[in-house]
Amino acid sequence: MQELAFVNGEIMPIDEAKVPIEDRGYNFGDAVYEYIASYQGKLFCLEEHLDRLERSMAALSFPKMSRDKIREAILELFDQSGIERAGIYLQISRGVAPRDHAYPEDAQPQFMMTVRPVHEKPPEFRHQGATAITVTDQRWGRCDVKTVQLLANAMAKQQALQAGVFDAIFVSEDGVVREATSSNVIIAKDGRLITHPLTEHILPGITRHVLLEICAERSLPVEERFFDLDALYAADEVFLTGTVTEVLPIVSIDGRSIGDGKIGPLARELYQALLEKIGA
Amino acid sequence: MQELAFVNGEIMPIDEAKVPIEDRGYNFGDAVYEYIASYQGKLFCLEEHLDRLERSMAALSFPKMSRDKIREAILELFDQSGIERAGIYLQISRGVAPRDHAYPEDAQPQFMMTVRPVHEKPPEFRHQGATAITVTDQRWGRCDVKTVQLLANAMAKQQALQAGVFDAIFVSEDGVVREATSSNVIIAKDGRLITHPLTEHILPGITRHVLLEICAERSLPVEERFFDLDALYAADEVFLTGTVTEVLPIVSIDGRSIGDGKIGPLARELYQALLEKIGA
Repeated sequence: MQELAFVNGEIMPIDEAKVPIEDRGYNFGDAVYEYIASYQGKLFCLEEHLDRLERSMAALSFPKMSRDKIREAILELFDQSGIERAGIYLQISRGVAPRDHAYPEDAQPQFMMTVRPVHEKPPEFRHQGATAITVTDQRWGRCDVKTVQLLANAMAKQQALQAGVFDAIFVSEDGVVREATSSNVIIAKDGRLITHPLTEHILPGITRHVLLEICAERSLPVEERFFDLDALYAADEVFLTGTVTEVLPIVSIDGRSIGDGKIGPLARELYQALLEKIGA
Repeated sequence: MQELAFVNGEIMPIDEAKVPIEDRGYNFGDAVYEYIASYQGKLFCLEEHLDRLERSMAALSFPKMSRDKIREAILELFDQSGIERAGIYLQISRGVAPRDHAYPEDAQPQFMMTVRPVHEKPPEFRHQGATAITVTDQRWGRCDVKTVQLLANAMAKQQALQAGVFDAIFVSEDGVVREATSSNVIIAKDGRLITHPLTEHILPGITRHVLLEICAERSLPVEERFFDLDALYAADEVFLTGTVTEVLPIVSIDGRSIGDGKIGPLARELYQALLEKIGA
């Protein structure tokens, strides 16, 4: 079992993996990424991640890359690592060119990955839930594309840690609750689930999608609609969803208890249903 | 005379210069930059660029670096290049660490530069002016910090080129004219100059600042205030200001002529005054 990196076809130790200083990912944040996790030696939702990767690349007018070759590279790196519960971080940038805002005409996309054991959430979060603050959403206008334009996310996460909580939830200037720094937000009120619709302001999360399928299978009512900060505070349950986050209950936001301050029944049910779907 | 790169103290050919794949500049756009130009072997406004670099680093809570050492490295690279009319691109990232949104505790800032001849604007732009389109501002909320969160800028520049014009001017969703993809915007109306005030939505341009000083010296009236798209279209003159842009008249926006569609007297006067200040 070993942590490894992949750069444009070559596999090597992570600390030896480098990219040119004029990679546009480095100078412009002109790169897209995915993070794919495995359970017991099997990658979960690999094709869904590849679908989204293709959509991200198309949204930025990147040259097309072979999906089969990308899949093959992922599976080769995952296999060589021998890690059963792995997290594969994959990043593709537009290419390397002398710095100029305009897209270079002849640049080749740069493809890098790392594989490591998944950094699991602390067990107490699964037993007692986690906490959050809200922050004003200062991110750019294309959060639906999974790019490395992530400085606002990093700043908000850091602000949360400094406030002694787990994460930050972005709220637009006009009060709409968007998502957390690396996961979507779902709230429950009177037995109904409510989550932000898929617009340019949130990431189309794969775990979010899987959970909405689970809700449909179980006839749990879901509304994809905007909701505001008051609705967030007044929710019976709030939880975050994502590849590593899975279903993570948030029991306190901005110092206010959500519901009775304990993990709620819908969060428990959906977390169990997700684990069953994963087969874990 | 040679193009060179600098990476953490070492000078080398640009195509040999690399950074680790887990540099946060690469995975999060967690990096700041400056671009400093020389005229006839002398760097213009070096201390002003260092001032802004320090402000950018402080805004992102980067560890402090010695200003004297940064200046020394710039001058050494510039000197070794032997380029009289050089553009020095300088980027400092938070550091290298396994990918995690939160700031790493023990990372060392990474410092890289390139030096090349300045890519001058085409001479016809100086004689006839340039053209632009307007685009909705989709950038993040901290454009006052000079970071590499520049994908929206790159996309807008590319959109301009595809529309057959030189540049794109960002206009907020509620109609406020911000700045162009890599320069500030100043308009002239009835003998008065108007420019966006220094808020979180525009870069505090050094050329903008120098020009406002020139205006003060010449008793040219300047208003730092918001103005909208109608005011942009109805301006007598519009020009862009920046390190390489200097003072660049825009004579057509969204296919509409600005004023009489020719370079105006204030743009000419300020361009000449800037060149005099530079001593070029």
